[in-house]
Order: sequence, then C-alpha cells, then structure tokens
Amino acid sequence: MNYREESLKKHAEWKGKIEVVSRVEVDSREKLSLAYTPGVAEPCMAIHEDAEKSFTLTRRWNTVPVITDGTAVLGLGDIGPEAGMPVMEGKCALFKAFGGVDAIPLCIRSKDTEEIIRTIELLAGSFGGINLEDISAPRCFEIERRLINDLDIPVFHDDQHGTAIVTAAALSNALRLVDKKREDVTVAINGAGAAGIAIANFLLKSGVKDVILCDSRGIICEGDPRLNSVKAEIASRTNRNRVTGGLANAMKGADVFVGVSVANCVGKEMVRSMKDGAIVFTCANPTPEIAREDALEAGAAIVGTGSSEKPNQINNVLVFPGLFRGALDVRAREINFEMMFAASEAIASAVGDKLSADYILPYAFEQRAHDAVAAAVAAAARKTGAARL
Amino acid sequence: MNYREESLKKHAEWKGKIEVVSRVEVDSREKLSLAYTPGVAEPCMAIHEDAEKSFTLTRRWNTVPVITDGTAVLGLGDIGPEAGMPVMEGKCALFKAFGGVDAIPLCIRSKDTEEIIRTIELLAGSFGGINLEDISAPRCFEIERRLINDLDIPVFHDDQHGTAIVTAAALSNALRLVDKKREDVTVAINGAGAAGIAIANFLLKSGVKDVILCDSRGIICEGDPRLNSVKAEIASRTNRNRVTGGLANAMKGADVFVGVSVANCVGKEMVRSMKDGAIVFTCANPTPEIAREDALEAGAAIVGTGSSEKPNQINNVLVFPGLFRGALDVRAREINFEMMFAASEAIASAVGDKLSADYILPYAFEQRAHDAVAAAVAAAARKTGAARL
Repeated sequence: MNYREESLKKHAEWKGKIEVVSRVEVDSREKLSLAYTPGVAEPCMAIHEDAEKSFTLTRRWNTVPVITDGTAVLGLGDIGPEAGMPVMEGKCALFKAFGGVDAIPLCIRSKDTEEIIRTIELLAGSFGGINLEDISAPRCFEIERRLINDLDIPVFHDDQHGTAIVTAAALSNALRLVDKKREDVTVAINGAGAAGIAIANFLLKSGVKDVILCDSRGIICEGDPRLNSVKAEIASRTNRNRVTGGLANAMKGADVFVGVSVANCVGKEMVRSMKDGAIVFTCANPTPEIAREDALEAGAAIVGTGSSEKPNQINNVLVFPGLFRGALDVRAREINFEMMFAASEAIASAVGDKLSADYILPYAFEQRAHDAVAAAVAAAARKTGAARL
Repeated sequence: MNYREESLKKHAEWKGKIEVVSRVEVDSREKLSLAYTPGVAEPCMAIHEDAEKSFTLTRRWNTVPVITDGTAVLGLGDIGPEAGMPVMEGKCALFKAFGGVDAIPLCIRSKDTEEIIRTIELLAGSFGGINLEDISAPRCFEIERRLINDLDIPVFHDDQHGTAIVTAAALSNALRLVDKKREDVTVAINGAGAAGIAIANFLLKSGVKDVILCDSRGIICEGDPRLNSVKAEIASRTNRNRVTGGLANAMKGADVFVGVSVANCVGKEMVRSMKDGAIVFTCANPTPEIAREDALEAGAAIVGTGSSEKPNQINNVLVFPGLFRGALDVRAREINFEMMFAASEAIASAVGDKLSADYILPYAFEQRAHDAVAAAVAAAARKTGAARL
C-alpha cells in the first residue's frame, strides 16, 4: 500500500481523527441545571476554595495537551504549526486508544522559546500533564527544563524521552539475545538533536558506560568550541576513549549503533567494522540510515528500524499512552527517570518468551504492553514520592 | 431539588463532563500507518503547502475553545481560572449536545489583557473559532475587539453577545404579546458590565431608539467624568431624554426593564412606575433583581428570568451551539451583527404559535431551536460575505 497517498485520502474522509463528546445528559431542564447553571456554581466554588479539587470535579485529571510549534514535525522539519496538526491529532487518537487519556492537539504560532514557555504555563491549570511534541532542538531542551521547573504537573517531551525509553527497551532485549551486558558495550549514536541527546542521557543513566555521540560534523568531542551548550555538556560525559573523526570511526568496534539521523549515512563496511553480535537501530524516517537487509548482510545480529513495514519498529507509541496513564492515575508531580526506566523495562518485558531477533519489541497495538507500562510507571511514581495519590 | 448540592455530588461522580475520543481505528499496523506514521506525513505536507487545508484534513473546522481567565464566572466573580472550569466544561458539553461542535475548555492563568490576547492568538491555528467566556469587563471588550481584528476566524464573547441575542429574542416575542414596536419603547437596563453594554448595543442596532443604561451608581449620563471609555462611548448613544438619578428614575415610565445586575435591587413600586404592558427581565443569578411573583403582582405583563426553575428562562444556551454550528458550517471569517440578529430572530420564531406570556422563548433542550439558529446564521453569513464556503 502507498501509505502516504492513501493517508491523504483517509484524512480528507475523516475530517479529524478525534472529537470531543459529552459525558453528561442535558436533555431536560433538571439535567441542564445540574451540569450547567445553576448547579455548576457549587463545584466552581469548591475548586475556588481548594484548587486541588480541579482534579476531581473536572476532566483535568485525565487531560493532556499534545503541544507543538511545528518546527520539527516527523522528519519533515519546520513545516509550521497548522501543518503539524495531523501528527498531533494522531497522537491524541493513540493516547485515547492505548492509554485512555483525553488528549487535545494544540499548535502554537511562535518559535520564541520564552513565548512558548509562557503560553503553556498560562494554560497549565487546564491539564493534568503536558506532552511536548516536535519542537526543534536546542529550544526543546530549555522549554522542557523550564516547564518542569515551574509546573507541578508532569511535563514530557516525547521526541526526547519517548524515543529514549523505547530505544532502551529495544536495546535491553537485543543485548539479552546477543548475551552482552549494558555495562560492557560501546554505543555509537548518530544524530545529536532532541532524540540523540535524550537517548545518550538515558543509556548513560541506565548503566551504559561508553556512548559515542555524533552530529553532522562527526564525533562530539569535549572542548570543541563549536558545540552548543547542550552538546558541550554531554560531550563531557560521553566518548570516554576520546575517539575523533566521523561516524565511521565511532562505529568501528562498537557493539551498538543507534541512528536517529538521516537517510543512507551508514554503509555496509561500517556495520562490518562493528563488534560481533552487532545491534543496529536505524530510525531515520522514511528512509533509514542503512536498509535492514543491507545491515543484516553486513553481519548485524539484530536490526531495529523506524518503519512499520519491518520487524522491530522502534516506535514511541509504545511509550506515551501508558506512561501518561500511569502518571495521571497517581496524579504524579513529574515524570522522573525512575518512572521512565520502569516504562522501558515494562516494554521490554512485554515481549515475554517470544523474544527473538525479529521480535525485540511488542507491537504498538498490543494493549498488554501499554497496560504494563502504566502499572510500572504508577508503581515507580509511588516508590519515588512523585505520586500524589 | 437542591441543585447546587446535588450538582457537586454529580460532578464528583462524572469526573469530567466531556472527553476526547478517537474517530479512527488504530488496531493494526496498517491502520496505524494511515492515521499516524508514516502516512500522516502526506496531510502534513498538504497543509504546509496550503494552510487552508487545515480545515479539511484535521478537526480544526469543527473545534472551538471555550476560554476563560476565571474573572467573571457566573455571578461568582473572580474565582480564578481553575475554578471556572466546571462552567467551561459544561458549555463544551452543551456545544456538542446542541450544536455538534467539538469544544475544548481552556483556562488562562493571567488577568493581563495583552497576555490573554497573545495567548489566544498563538493558539488560533488549532481552531475554527474562539468562544471567550466569563472574562470581566472592561477587559473583555478590548480582548474581543483585538482578537476580532487580528484573527480570520470567528471570535465571540458569549457573555456579551450570547446574552444580547437571547435577550433580544425574548424582547421580540414579548413586544409581540403586548403589541408594541421596538421603535417605540423605552428600555431601562440595569448593569453595565459585559452583558448590559452588549444588550444596549444590540437593541440599539436592532431598532430600539431609547435605551437607558444604569450601573451601580445610577443612570449613565453623557459627560460623566467617572465613566470608563466603554461606558462613555455608549453614554453618547443612550438616554436620549437625559434622565438623571438612580435606577428608579430610569424605570419610571419605561416599557421594558432588563436586569443583568444584582439581587433584589428592584422593588415592586419601581415595576408599578413602568408603562402598561411592562416587560421585566430579571436575569441576576441565582437571586433575581425582583422575584417573578412580585413583578407580576406589581403589574408586569411578562416576566423573564435567569432561572431554569421559572418560565421564560433567558439563557444563552439557546445561542452559542447553533450560532457556532452555522458559522463553522460556512467557515465564516467573523460573526457579524447580521448573523447575530438572524440568530436572535430564529430563536424568537422557534416558539411558533405556542407563544404566550409564559413561553416567550424555546426551552434550551428543544433541538429545533438550535437547528434554526444554525441555518439562519449560515444564511446570514453567506448574505453578508462572511462565509468562505
């Protein structure tokens, strides 16, 4: 199927992938008086006296906006806020289907970091959590950092952490198959945008000791004056053997390659230069860093991709519905690393004993995976004190 | 029934009066690939090339936020943004039930006019129209004026125009019953906030020649240096006989009283001082300016109230669902006076030949009234060139 052509047709038929429905009846004077005036004055005053009650007397407890400025939509780049909406709506549909979350697509007509932060802060009282989406690096780091600092509801930039969580889950199962330990492997990551930086951070926090991060100019080395502040910071914690040069040098002798970069930047010889039992995740979309077939031919033991057409799709749809479900269920103040790590391990475990080189992750539509993520995240929130319920 | 107590209980049970649902299936890899990646890239690019397509490829065409800053919620005043949410959610439920509109409740944590304007402008690409709600005067006038000026989608402050439209509908039918003409009557309005000012403007535009507007200090007179700019402007177009003094003076000899003010500010003797066939609309909530029974005893021919417990509830629920339905159906650029007047006349006509002193307006749950409003508004939008479809 030509998904893109068919999708355009379908979108024109659907006229929107989500809608808002009423949960109350308003077909009599009595019912109107309870759901609306005069009765509604009472829940209003109850919230006025105790703002926490907005979580029990309105839909706030279950509502999350999917917010973008349209600057980094899929692999399409800065296509503008309105053009990002089909993706936002799609995420909202997935939020409900797999997580039972009421998600609202919002696009912001500004690329100004301060303005985006302020807009979201002003709206935060309407929501139980915030999902940031498709905002370009490095602005996304500052926007997320500030919002996490200023708000007392969970703030989550899916392009960073959703990608990191599902990549770590895939890696966890792949390492099991090739019988290697996190602590012992070298991971070369290509792409130092939102996803690449977040993956590097997540892997380092979860026990990987040796990460080499590359951007379009090659390996990110400590002390390089051309690095922005985010890259400079992570340079100090990666590349422990001070490898220099391009991606080929980074991959030479590595156990794992993670591509969140551009089409066709990896050749077969580069995969051949990796250690035995090489794990290759090529997530560039729609065209990967190297075709799955080529990577396998060049000796990769396990290949994961960004494509729904191939085995082992590394898709953050596996993360966000269950993650927010769990966080909302315990009215979490934040989504901390422990909660994210729990989500990652829950995804990996959901594969169960069917684990194989062609099935290192559950499919997105396997509901038990989402349920497992929700339960694990809620438990981790309680354990770390992030839960308010 | 004690609506307020019962309503609080119900709100705790409902845990939200609206929810977001998916309109697409995502239970297979193929379906996911159409609604989300990779297929979704195509509608994104189509909108990127032509922003108008956001109205056909996403839910934008049918989506309206109900936005408040929580400063003038019902008669409760400035209770804060979160506390306003039960009302906003209620309106969203009514928007769907009676108008088929997907409405989203948003509260803004700011009272700053510029900040509110900017926030809404930045989000406007997500919506087909904007419904402003429960924002206090005089800020609401400036906020609405600026948004109408800056945006090319309909912007409507319901507390102003919804109230004016339904009041004018009630007046239209009441005048029919007492056999008087708009052109000939004197209308005394008490309350010069959002609703009072809008009612005065609307009645003047629709043919009433003599309006006397009062605020808490009495009759608003041209040249009074204490008036804010909005009141000063309307002072020049009202009170043509230069009556001075308090509300009692305004009502003396008037044909119509419209109260959008405070409890118990009208005595029986004030109603007695009105002309024969007096029309008395007492919309203060929950306690009216004068009890319906007292107004009737004092000689009023027709009484309308703000209460769902009494006949003739003057309720803007009769307006906004159909009004936005009509505006969205023709993708209107704005909601102009002709569209509002058409809505008002459609509401009045929906009463049909059942018109009586106790039935001057349809009930809110009479769907044909909403359908009639939608059709009339769409037709008026086409006639005035406001329609894009």
